[in-house]
Amino acid sequence: MFKYVFGVDLGGTTVKIGLLTTSGEKVDVWEIPTRTEQNGKYILGDIAKSVRAKMEEKGITDSEVMGVGIGAPGPVDSKGVIYNAVNLGWGKFNLEEELHSIVKLPVKAGNDANVAAYGEAWKGGGKGYSNMLLATLGTGVGGGIIIDGKLLNGATGAGGEIGHIHIEDEEEDTCGCGNHGCFEQYASATGAVRLAKRELVASNEDSVLRSENDLTCKLIFDAAKAGDALAKRVIEKYGYYLGKGLAAVASVTNPEVIVLGGGVSKCGEILFDLLRPSYEKYVFPGSANVKFALAELGNDAGIFGAARMLIDKD
Amino acid sequence: MFKYVFGVDLGGTTVKIGLLTTSGEKVDVWEIPTRTEQNGKYILGDIAKSVRAKMEEKGITDSEVMGVGIGAPGPVDSKGVIYNAVNLGWGKFNLEEELHSIVKLPVKAGNDANVAAYGEAWKGGGKGYSNMLLATLGTGVGGGIIIDGKLLNGATGAGGEIGHIHIEDEEEDTCGCGNHGCFEQYASATGAVRLAKRELVASNEDSVLRSENDLTCKLIFDAAKAGDALAKRVIEKYGYYLGKGLAAVASVTNPEVIVLGGGVSKCGEILFDLLRPSYEKYVFPGSANVKFALAELGNDAGIFGAARMLIDKD
Repeated sequence: MFKYVFGVDLGGTTVKIGLLTTSGEKVDVWEIPTRTEQNGKYILGDIAKSVRAKMEEKGITDSEVMGVGIGAPGPVDSKGVIYNAVNLGWGKFNLEEELHSIVKLPVKAGNDANVAAYGEAWKGGGKGYSNMLLATLGTGVGGGIIIDGKLLNGATGAGGEIGHIHIEDEEEDTCGCGNHGCFEQYASATGAVRLAKRELVASNEDSVLRSENDLTCKLIFDAAKAGDALAKRVIEKYGYYLGKGLAAVASVTNPEVIVLGGGVSKCGEILFDLLRPSYEKYVFPGSANVKFALAELGNDAGIFGAARMLIDKD
Repeated sequence: MFKYVFGVDLGGTTVKIGLLTTSGEKVDVWEIPTRTEQNGKYILGDIAKSVRAKMEEKGITDSEVMGVGIGAPGPVDSKGVIYNAVNLGWGKFNLEEELHSIVKLPVKAGNDANVAAYGEAWKGGGKGYSNMLLATLGTGVGGGIIIDGKLLNGATGAGGEIGHIHIEDEEEDTCGCGNHGCFEQYASATGAVRLAKRELVASNEDSVLRSENDLTCKLIFDAAKAGDALAKRVIEKYGYYLGKGLAAVASVTNPEVIVLGGGVSKCGEILFDLLRPSYEKYVFPGSANVKFALAELGNDAGIFGAARMLIDKD
């Protein structure tokens, strides 16, 4: 009878590891550095050592552990093969088999954004729903899609990469992916700042944002809430694009709930009011009746989702 | 040991029924009329009677039959509930339970477009792939998405409704769904004719299309192939929009293969050349490496897909 499961959230600078019970209670959460030197050759060994040390510390035997789930910053296919995690210096290899051969426990691997969606669906903003879309609004826009309780990984692990659907023909700036008019050029935190800078250049209108040297998404939303007219227009535009992009994804995947996570989601439920007009305008009517929710697990979504992959596997 | 399975493709005027072996060979295919009178109350009874009559004719016993799969023209959720199949006069009810109570065999139900996708994935253009997108280019644009071998149904059976994602901001004509700039306003057969009519109005340029009273998609493609410059521009525009819409769907779902079906797909592989430039321009790079194929089962896709749902269920 399994009592425990490990969830690993592998990032570019730190690895967050969670020891959870199989019903999803946190027993312990800690971090180790991500050693990216020499093409990241130490990373999996470090994780295995840390997991094994924790088992010894807590007196946990192999037979009590369901396994180790790991979310990694790159596309991971359904066989556990990771493709080109550039931040870690990794090429293409079977992450599940490799980590399993070192840690000697069952391993399940997934893309970090998809895994976070799994966490939110299990214990966070999407709890109780089988069909969920998580949009992570941070430096970029990531996504994870849960269909009938399962992750949509896609052929090469690029499923749920909602940040790069095209939503604006008139865009002249280039997205990080090389295209123009990608969803994440507007709906990320960076996108909100970009929209604000454009609005500031377009007029001489008074705005508290003019005195900010280091514009952030939070400053823009705070200014809008305090009544700044220009900031208000910026967040309305932000909401327009957020709703438009989510409508495209929801028209295809028909979720019950759309969960907003990432830094921008800290702005709160005002986001729902901002996005709803364009969401309703652009969505296929059959997918219009959706609930919106905020992510609840913050940085813990990855460890919960990673652990959950194991529980699902058995 | 099951030997047979029935696949039912329920349309607005006829019901097509297939008796297949469980490995997918056709034993018999026939049609009965769809009696839509009195809110379609006779439809399921007619189907059950026809299935039972065929079993008697062939001397097939209940224990040899895996069940009856049925694709219906409306959203069907994963519990078998159909929502509002207006063409049949039906409201919302559990189609699986209702048909099961009459035919006394296991029943599995799905949306017709999704079911057709399942058929193409099993025995047609998507054979051998676990992650497929079927785009049905007919009067409208329907779709079906297969993820890891399973249908993406969505929360209310509206999954894969790719025809109504928004791809053009400048559109003034209204789509059947009430929106403007939907994928199906361009990529359907009707859309191709609309693009041609616009092009004809925009100039006085010579074109064989001017002498056609009843413009069809086939006439446009034939004219383009024969060297008509205006028709060529029309099919290039058609391909532009087809690629742009498919790119949005593929960026989210990351398929291995995109299969084109419906009337327009009879124009053949020229479609791949036409759509590829905009597909590659707009798709997320991680989903760029996709194969394109033509649907192969034609009107039989529905019965194969419907039957396949049963085989998957067990």
